Amino acid sequence: MEFLVHGYVRGEIPDYQMSAFLMAVFFRGMDLEEMTQLTEIMLRSGEVVDLSSIPGIKVDKHSTGGVGDKVSLILAPLVAACGVPVPMISARGLGHTGGTLDKLESIPGFRTNLSLEELRRGVSEVGVVMMGQTDDLVPADRRMYALRDVTATVESIPLIAASIISKKLAEGVDALVLDIKTGRGAFMQKYEDSLELAKTLVTIGNNFGKRIIAFITDMSQPLGYAAGNWIEVVEAVECLRGQGPADLTDLTCTLAGAMLLLGGKVTTIDGGIQESKAALASGRAYEKFVEMVRNQGGDPRYVENPGQYPQPKFRVEVLAASDGYLESIDALEIGLACVEIGAGRKRMREKIDPNAGVLLRKKVGDPVVRGECIAILQADRKEGMTLGKARVDRAFRFSSLKPEPSPVVLSMIEVDETSVDKIRVKPWPRSL
Amino acid sequence: MEFLVHGYVRGEIPDYQMSAFLMAVFFRGMDLEEMTQLTEIMLRSGEVVDLSSIPGIKVDKHSTGGVGDKVSLILAPLVAACGVPVPMISARGLGHTGGTLDKLESIPGFRTNLSLEELRRGVSEVGVVMMGQTDDLVPADRRMYALRDVTATVESIPLIAASIISKKLAEGVDALVLDIKTGRGAFMQKYEDSLELAKTLVTIGNNFGKRIIAFITDMSQPLGYAAGNWIEVVEAVECLRGQGPADLTDLTCTLAGAMLLLGGKVTTIDGGIQESKAALASGRAYEKFVEMVRNQGGDPRYVENPGQYPQPKFRVEVLAASDGYLESIDALEIGLACVEIGAGRKRMREKIDPNAGVLLRKKVGDPVVRGECIAILQADRKEGMTLGKARVDRAFRFSSLKPEPSPVVLSMIEVDETSVDKIRVKPWPRSL
Repeated sequence: MEFLVHGYVRGEIPDYQMSAFLMAVFFRGMDLEEMTQLTEIMLRSGEVVDLSSIPGIKVDKHSTGGVGDKVSLILAPLVAACGVPVPMISARGLGHTGGTLDKLESIPGFRTNLSLEELRRGVSEVGVVMMGQTDDLVPADRRMYALRDVTATVESIPLIAASIISKKLAEGVDALVLDIKTGRGAFMQKYEDSLELAKTLVTIGNNFGKRIIAFITDMSQPLGYAAGNWIEVVEAVECLRGQGPADLTDLTCTLAGAMLLLGGKVTTIDGGIQESKAALASGRAYEKFVEMVRNQGGDPRYVENPGQYPQPKFRVEVLAASDGYLESIDALEIGLACVEIGAGRKRMREKIDPNAGVLLRKKVGDPVVRGECIAILQADRKEGMTLGKARVDRAFRFSSLKPEPSPVVLSMIEVDETSVDKIRVKPWPRSL
Repeated sequence: MEFLVHGYVRGEIPDYQMSAFLMAVFFRGMDLEEMTQLTEIMLRSGEVVDLSSIPGIKVDKHSTGGVGDKVSLILAPLVAACGVPVPMISARGLGHTGGTLDKLESIPGFRTNLSLEELRRGVSEVGVVMMGQTDDLVPADRRMYALRDVTATVESIPLIAASIISKKLAEGVDALVLDIKTGRGAFMQKYEDSLELAKTLVTIGNNFGKRIIAFITDMSQPLGYAAGNWIEVVEAVECLRGQGPADLTDLTCTLAGAMLLLGGKVTTIDGGIQESKAALASGRAYEKFVEMVRNQGGDPRYVENPGQYPQPKFRVEVLAASDGYLESIDALEIGLACVEIGAGRKRMREKIDPNAGVLLRKKVGDPVVRGECIAILQADRKEGMTLGKARVDRAFRFSSLKPEPSPVVLSMIEVDETSVDKIRVKPWPRSL
């Protein structure tokens, strides 16, 4: 594998041999030892950031990607505000899922292409940096990922695991919290697959001496009300000010609770959740966000007063087709609608429209009246609006019965050296 | 598949996507309908020869490749001498197995790179042509095969089947006899795998309206005594003159019997076998071979008097290590020894040494005395002789007991519309 992966990065192994290998892994899988070795070989293909001179346990979060998932925007400054340094390296939108970098860049002036030196300085001075991957970090992953994307080999647990863990090891973190999505809007739609991925990631991270806590969380409907770029920043800011929607706030505080535990600031996740809620309520998290925006060149005026942001040129309303309750909102369709109207990319390097997005007016379980507005599509371009609206229309299911409420966080996975398979899976929420 | 295969031939689909597809097929397989479609799509990637203006049922033979397998050299002129036209398109050596083209080209002047027009003329005037594939026939196969060779996807029954059948359909034959090798010297070493390939090939051929009879034949020891290029021509000529070794003559006449049956010249395979033996004994087959050599530019003097051929510069004897009987001769080791001393290629485009080869003095079941010469390696280059001799030494197993004689032809596979799986497998030999 070292011959193959490092030879590939040096350009000595052609694409066609790497793609044959990736397809073989896709169908044959890998055992944990092979995955651990692949992770290490990929990690060693580039530079590894050394953050050891910065005091504190550095903790990051990784999400497998969802629709309306603006958690990172809230979580990183929130955890930093509680005293745990967060060096967060994020990605752009992929397929139907949004990307943290695209969302951040909708803030005028905000720079995500920082150098590793800027990463170190930002974490040291502000406590939090949110940036994109550099060319020096895990070049094997960048090249292999581009090839997986065009050879239908993305959804392979060994390849996903090696990709995620090698990147997180390279950014110099000490511990990691994982948000593994499941449901229609997730890359892994089945709970069992998400659980297997979570166990794999926790085990491999542990093999490298990193503490990892993973949560499996629901992505059957979009998270919060906003899906897009700037409209997600607006919703994140509301949440940072303690006025976010319940599902988004709950998920963010749960992940933050685990990060504060791993960062040594609290002794239980519940303690961390309380601490996080206090930081949202007090405005400390919001202030840290503004500080981070300023540090990375962003114009804080738009964050402080979102109404000043240029209004979208086009808006289309989606109306309820029936009386009753919203039974489900297909996150995949909403995500695809976002891509259709310009909030995501159909091709690499396509420019996204920061104003494009879908704003839900109702969530699953809400009562609706036939003809009332349940969602708004908005964008600066008219292109794709008709197709996008059709997708949003299709996303809604109505019912005459009120559906059972379902939790956002479904389970927690962590290493447990005392158990037979060294992994503990805890149902979540624990006592609601 | 059409989008993929034809796009690949046009250069619109990159190698890396085709290799991912090939690896997916390697692990997932294909059902018969998919294989039939892939075969047709590959066939339509190029030209199809039309031999319908030439009278008679055109029949060809295809072998999956072996060591010492000079059957084509005898079979094609033999069947043509019996009145069935044979348009035979052959290949070069691959891995440890020899190639008919390389053997023919050891005859000074013999041309194998004929045009399709020369193919038509030769079949019409001489009744037999032996040539290499042209650029116009199944370009998809040539490009896909080259990629399979470097991505470890050669040994896949669907890919092998589509490759063989598409090429044979393209050369314009009406019927086909297949020699599916099994044992240590074959690409498929296990009988069950060879049987599955045989059934697949017969079924797919039938889907295209072509009659196919397949034989599974033993390739645990080399066929005949000679393995190489010119020394195989010499042994083929002896066989054409009715003085070939028993295993080679038996196999050739069995295949010829089936070809004469498919060609409509006889009503049973046994009848065809008798007819073939008569053509060897009478010299008619030999005369047809000389006529073919002359037609394709070869110098018939060397065929008529092999002693005039330049003698190999180096000869090394291999001596029996024990008294007793030869229990086995590993055809794979003999084939690899041939490659080592220059009779085959380690890299594409390597020039082969026509004089290089291994000449056995004993076959399985023969009594041997310790120290007696049991094989000779010969070549014009000294390079590789030591490694080659070590392989030949390793190839022999001795026993104090005389081993049971084992037949060359193990079974026959043909279409049987009356049976449940539409295939009949007959044990062979039938009444020995």
